[in-house]
Amino acid sequence: MDRPTLPKGTRDFGPAVMAKRQFIFQSIRSVFERYGFLPLETPAMENLSTLTGKYGEEGDQLLFKVLNSGDYLKDIDPALLSSKDSRRLTPSIAEKGLKYDLTVPFARYVVMNRHEITFPFKRYQIQPVWRADRPQKGRYREFYQCDADVIGTDSMVCEAEIILMIRDAFAKLGINRYSIKINHRGVLAALAALAGAGDKESSLFVAIDKLDKIGEAGVRDELASRGFSAEAVDSLFDLLNKRGTNQEKLELLRAQLGKYEKAAASIHDLEQVFTFVASMGGEAAPVELDLALARGLSYYTGCIFEVKIHDAAVGSVSGGGRYDNLTAVFDSKERSSGVGFSFGVDRLYDAMEELNLFPEETQRSSQVLVCHLDEECLRYGLGITQKLRAKSIAAEIYPEPSKLKKQLEYADKKKIPFAVVIGSDEMKSGVLAVKNLKTGEQHLRTLEQFLSDITAIPK
Amino acid sequence: MDRPTLPKGTRDFGPAVMAKRQFIFQSIRSVFERYGFLPLETPAMENLSTLTGKYGEEGDQLLFKVLNSGDYLKDIDPALLSSKDSRRLTPSIAEKGLKYDLTVPFARYVVMNRHEITFPFKRYQIQPVWRADRPQKGRYREFYQCDADVIGTDSMVCEAEIILMIRDAFAKLGINRYSIKINHRGVLAALAALAGAGDKESSLFVAIDKLDKIGEAGVRDELASRGFSAEAVDSLFDLLNKRGTNQEKLELLRAQLGKYEKAAASIHDLEQVFTFVASMGGEAAPVELDLALARGLSYYTGCIFEVKIHDAAVGSVSGGGRYDNLTAVFDSKERSSGVGFSFGVDRLYDAMEELNLFPEETQRSSQVLVCHLDEECLRYGLGITQKLRAKSIAAEIYPEPSKLKKQLEYADKKKIPFAVVIGSDEMKSGVLAVKNLKTGEQHLRTLEQFLSDITAIPK
Repeated sequence: MDRPTLPKGTRDFGPAVMAKRQFIFQSIRSVFERYGFLPLETPAMENLSTLTGKYGEEGDQLLFKVLNSGDYLKDIDPALLSSKDSRRLTPSIAEKGLKYDLTVPFARYVVMNRHEITFPFKRYQIQPVWRADRPQKGRYREFYQCDADVIGTDSMVCEAEIILMIRDAFAKLGINRYSIKINHRGVLAALAALAGAGDKESSLFVAIDKLDKIGEAGVRDELASRGFSAEAVDSLFDLLNKRGTNQEKLELLRAQLGKYEKAAASIHDLEQVFTFVASMGGEAAPVELDLALARGLSYYTGCIFEVKIHDAAVGSVSGGGRYDNLTAVFDSKERSSGVGFSFGVDRLYDAMEELNLFPEETQRSSQVLVCHLDEECLRYGLGITQKLRAKSIAAEIYPEPSKLKKQLEYADKKKIPFAVVIGSDEMKSGVLAVKNLKTGEQHLRTLEQFLSDITAIPK
Repeated sequence: MDRPTLPKGTRDFGPAVMAKRQFIFQSIRSVFERYGFLPLETPAMENLSTLTGKYGEEGDQLLFKVLNSGDYLKDIDPALLSSKDSRRLTPSIAEKGLKYDLTVPFARYVVMNRHEITFPFKRYQIQPVWRADRPQKGRYREFYQCDADVIGTDSMVCEAEIILMIRDAFAKLGINRYSIKINHRGVLAALAALAGAGDKESSLFVAIDKLDKIGEAGVRDELASRGFSAEAVDSLFDLLNKRGTNQEKLELLRAQLGKYEKAAASIHDLEQVFTFVASMGGEAAPVELDLALARGLSYYTGCIFEVKIHDAAVGSVSGGGRYDNLTAVFDSKERSSGVGFSFGVDRLYDAMEELNLFPEETQRSSQVLVCHLDEECLRYGLGITQKLRAKSIAAEIYPEPSKLKKQLEYADKKKIPFAVVIGSDEMKSGVLAVKNLKTGEQHLRTLEQFLSDITAIPK
């Protein structure tokens, strides 16, 4: 028999990794809920008609397709089969696919349930998605996304709350040094007009988005090769290079871009975001207006965000933006403004490992192992174990009579911090011999004393 | 554009349903963790070589298969294509499938990671599985399973702990009237010998498993039609009909079945389970030795369990048993005893709805909506909202200036219990106008007073 393997690009999450992932998920979830976001789950499978055409042609190729059940070849034209054209055959033998992101299924949900939903609708969603990408370091074929969106209001309160949610989540995770970059698609459009981009808007955005990576000279070269005039590029960099506070940058934008259509409204949006953040006591949040931030996704129409952790080489760990037409792909009459963002859980995990930020508690399993010297002690120990559990202590009893050494090794391997050893003395006295497995110290404690020594796990 | 739909047999879980499902999951998870079980997650997709042949021929047909990526027809023999034989083609165009249960992936995980795992290994797993079953009421193509298993020990402590975990989980869920039925495959084998079943063991088990549904007469008819002698069936029913305590039944078994191979060991197993349950203070748990309990899954070899809720017509909501050879399907040298059980989340959900057991808190979203009479009040309200959140209160602010009526309607639809209304008076005085949306009462409260009125959500 061959040893079993995992499909390429997929992972098992064993207990040690799961504990850390749950710490991340639980931290984020509690922040989402504190801000009034409610959970949604959608199925792993969607009809391919829901998914296809939403992610560009490349995205369509990366969808995992699920073979129809039963005799799926029965009604297929033999000519289609003999043509051996995989792409043309697929729609006839596969009607369903695995979801590629959480955004399109969310839009589908909103369109299907619009009459029951209370708008503005604030939902979060933490679920896996699947992409038939070439697996490589940090890129998987199955990975979790962790999204929060508000749909049905164009208030900049939502943008301000996103900034504060990122701050609060990072505080819970212990991430202190990071920056939240913000920009606005309307400002980018005005910048493009300033640079005379005409129909080359998107190549302009792609180029300036690389400023971090290839520097000003690199971006200038790229723009020149794409036919931008040196003069236009100069006036662009005049703005991009401006340092200063967010307020100073906004004033500059008003002065330089006021003449372009919609720029004033976009600048007002940004101004409101900063005002609301300040009203919420978030002045100290590391938000930076970054005119070079573009973000790839074409459905964004308003503010856009991106978050990077300092000192960790993992790229951006969160991002998002406002969109006006998300549900229009399913219903052209449906045009409600929304804004969303997501946390990149795998990158957050890597950054937290790199910075050694996972609390020690996430690495332990149970808090107590009850050990015993014979079968009678085991039975007595069962009662003790149960009393600990009744006080919300995660407790285990070594399940079979065994050498004490073996029992303590089990506790050690599982990073259980305390062992209670039951012998005939302890059974007589009712006092517990408690061994701290980290220090090696051993003390006699009543059950009540021991309970006050250790902390209950939060429910 | 057609309105989008969901694939047959799949569901969205909107916020109201999610809150209830999370209450179930969180209750069960906290019990699993308190008993020292650690979380595991495995991918949605497994290689078909891992899944095929593990669930019988019918199970193989119910696996969802994932089409290979890229030009999957390229190397297919044209003769195979033109034969239009779906079953024969499938293995050539689909190498992966969606997991059908959590048990086989768990066994695969144990075999792949046996050198890193500390045994006895206690893991729980809460994830969706997929089956291409014909959808019908209460049967879905995507549904969650919720399993806990211990592998690597044959101690009956594990069985006793399963009984107490079911008791504790039901206590958390508010389910009071239920029964946990227990039996043993070894006892069943002895019963089969008693009834002279020979190679008809499994048809005997199938028949007596129906005792609940078709009654004694029905089972007698079925057994007669399968060639069991009236005398054999009489002696079988002598045992099955015995009422009494578990101890009385065990004594009867010892007297009647002691002569059959392995029966003594099985009876001893059951005896130990009851002893350990009593040592753990679980005497009052509604455990009943039910000699007619058989359970279908052929991989069980020891104790078996099944749990039913009284007063709810949902069938069994939990079940499990001991197996000796789970990992042997992947590695014939690997034979470690284990025992596991699972909760049927969809049935638990239906039962709790039927019995109206979901706590009111699961039905609300945020605890407070901050309302405002104009833009300035909105900005002031942002600060109040944030102060509530800082105290772990789930709070929302209506994101845009709006009529108060509209804001209160939003709170009402979302079942938010309190509204704080900010007007110019409140801004001047710093006192809050707090409206209890259930009673309609309105009171002036300082922030500190209000915070002491409402309870913080547990983290």
